[in-house]
Amino acid sequence: MNNHKLTEFSLIDQITKKINHFSSQVYKGIGDDTAIIKESGGKLLFTTDAQVEGVHFSTKYLSYYQIGKRAVAINISDVAAMGGFPKYILVSLFIQRNISSEDINQLYDGMLDECKDFGVEIIGGNISKSNQFIIDIFLTGEMNTHSPLLRSAARLGDKVLVTGTIGDSACGLKILADNKLKIPKACKDRLLNKHILPIPRVKEGIFIAKSGLATSMIDISDGLSSDLGHICEQSHKGVRIYSGNIPISKEVKLYSEISGTSYMEYALNGGEDYELCFTASERNAEKLINRLKNSTGTKATIIGEIVEEKYGRKIVDFKGKSLVLVSKGWDHLKKT
Amino acid sequence: MNNHKLTEFSLIDQITKKINHFSSQVYKGIGDDTAIIKESGGKLLFTTDAQVEGVHFSTKYLSYYQIGKRAVAINISDVAAMGGFPKYILVSLFIQRNISSEDINQLYDGMLDECKDFGVEIIGGNISKSNQFIIDIFLTGEMNTHSPLLRSAARLGDKVLVTGTIGDSACGLKILADNKLKIPKACKDRLLNKHILPIPRVKEGIFIAKSGLATSMIDISDGLSSDLGHICEQSHKGVRIYSGNIPISKEVKLYSEISGTSYMEYALNGGEDYELCFTASERNAEKLINRLKNSTGTKATIIGEIVEEKYGRKIVDFKGKSLVLVSKGWDHLKKT
Repeated sequence: MNNHKLTEFSLIDQITKKINHFSSQVYKGIGDDTAIIKESGGKLLFTTDAQVEGVHFSTKYLSYYQIGKRAVAINISDVAAMGGFPKYILVSLFIQRNISSEDINQLYDGMLDECKDFGVEIIGGNISKSNQFIIDIFLTGEMNTHSPLLRSAARLGDKVLVTGTIGDSACGLKILADNKLKIPKACKDRLLNKHILPIPRVKEGIFIAKSGLATSMIDISDGLSSDLGHICEQSHKGVRIYSGNIPISKEVKLYSEISGTSYMEYALNGGEDYELCFTASERNAEKLINRLKNSTGTKATIIGEIVEEKYGRKIVDFKGKSLVLVSKGWDHLKKT
Repeated sequence: MNNHKLTEFSLIDQITKKINHFSSQVYKGIGDDTAIIKESGGKLLFTTDAQVEGVHFSTKYLSYYQIGKRAVAINISDVAAMGGFPKYILVSLFIQRNISSEDINQLYDGMLDECKDFGVEIIGGNISKSNQFIIDIFLTGEMNTHSPLLRSAARLGDKVLVTGTIGDSACGLKILADNKLKIPKACKDRLLNKHILPIPRVKEGIFIAKSGLATSMIDISDGLSSDLGHICEQSHKGVRIYSGNIPISKEVKLYSEISGTSYMEYALNGGEDYELCFTASERNAEKLINRLKNSTGTKATIIGEIVEEKYGRKIVDFKGKSLVLVSKGWDHLKKT
């Protein structure tokens, strides 16, 4: 086996092929933002996501409070991406001996604050010794009145939409790692905040799923190119994205200008924005944008459309030039 | 904060005090083998337990197949300890770059084999890069027709019982670490097997809970002294254990003899036997032993009784001498 070629997605693919049969109670097994189990009262959602020190965060830049709050938010975002209500959390901690009980206290304060914002309860967990600080969270969710939006249900001709703006979190991460650039404070604070304390789009996800107007959904955790790639792959479709339509905040544009970097790179491959990317028919897309804005105050933008798989995944730039959209987003196993 | 005094149980205590309020849907929050949520159809159980390389196992001694099988068994044991049916698993893997896809293949073969034995399905998970190999499992369970057996419901005068024999796993671990002693092969194999591939007592747990004859239950994961300590603490009771009554296998006795070590140490503080420790009134204890044996083929043994909390936790030795039963079992944060 050539270990150098091991990537997160190739491993998930390997595991998915191995575990390809589920009982009739399993509505959705491996391969979406959450697993889904059918129950008498509706559907139960299950997801897990971890934050590893030195891989996903550094205690040099983030407080334990922030680490806790963020770890919970990231899991809640997966339930939001199905259109579900987040419910209960189990916290699996891996800690080194040099952590203090005050650190743990702060960590739980952060987790509890995030839980409170979304009506989630911490009901259990586990603690193990390790040589790296890791917080691994298991989250359950439920949906009783509507159907989940899977990655696999995008249809030909659907418009592709995203909530909010993207690329902000990636710029925030850049600022954390290199604080030497002179960025106006308000801009810096907003970008840092988007990275450190993302707000999962729970009410938006529920609204979009309940509306019955969308066909598929995913949250942007690994980067638009990767996450939209999952929708394409699982729906057996291609996509055409118009770079000029991608919603970029003025802060991302300003940061890119000052740093001399490309904001399109942050938007396409940055990840960790925890915005929602979803699809809806041409007829429903504008309707959904208006209703979502009226109901939640959140803006959504059409950035492209679903095409036949044989046309691949492309991004059309400002000059009308078409480039292949390569999934370059976050791979948890790639060399950094 | 004095970090040297941080123990797994002091941390759990700290967290439990912090999160002491649950909604009415939570039947049992932090502090038992699983959390329990009330649902329209019955009760849902949630638990998580992890295996960390270098802490809980070593790839020097265990194959990836065994690591996977064992990790699942250990989680299933927690659901067994409530008297529930294990159902679905999410697998959170933390892997180093030098792991091969064949290792992952073997790991999943082990997990899937253990799942198959107990009607459990792997429905999702997550993969992260880390500098230590960790397998963290999240298991759900259910119970629709009977009530769970909590740690907190032991009553005064109850008999204390255990299934099978204890101390075997601890001897197996000793043999793994030091293979120089000349132990007869059959003995060695049995002890190694009990350590490497424990069989969670699912049918026994369900039978005991369904019988309505028991009052409390826990699985022996950290060691009898620690685990029985949890029952005492949460039930606000003391305990009197008779060392001569503790079921010790002939293999443990033989290994102790050859190695010149104390089998009582293995039985009391060894842990990882994944037998069940439970309580039942004097009137019901013998009845339960007989019915359990008839129904499952598994022997249970009375090893002592529940007394008032003020009398503490004691162990009465062969000569009638009473010693304090100190919880010396496995603490995941202690120095090893």
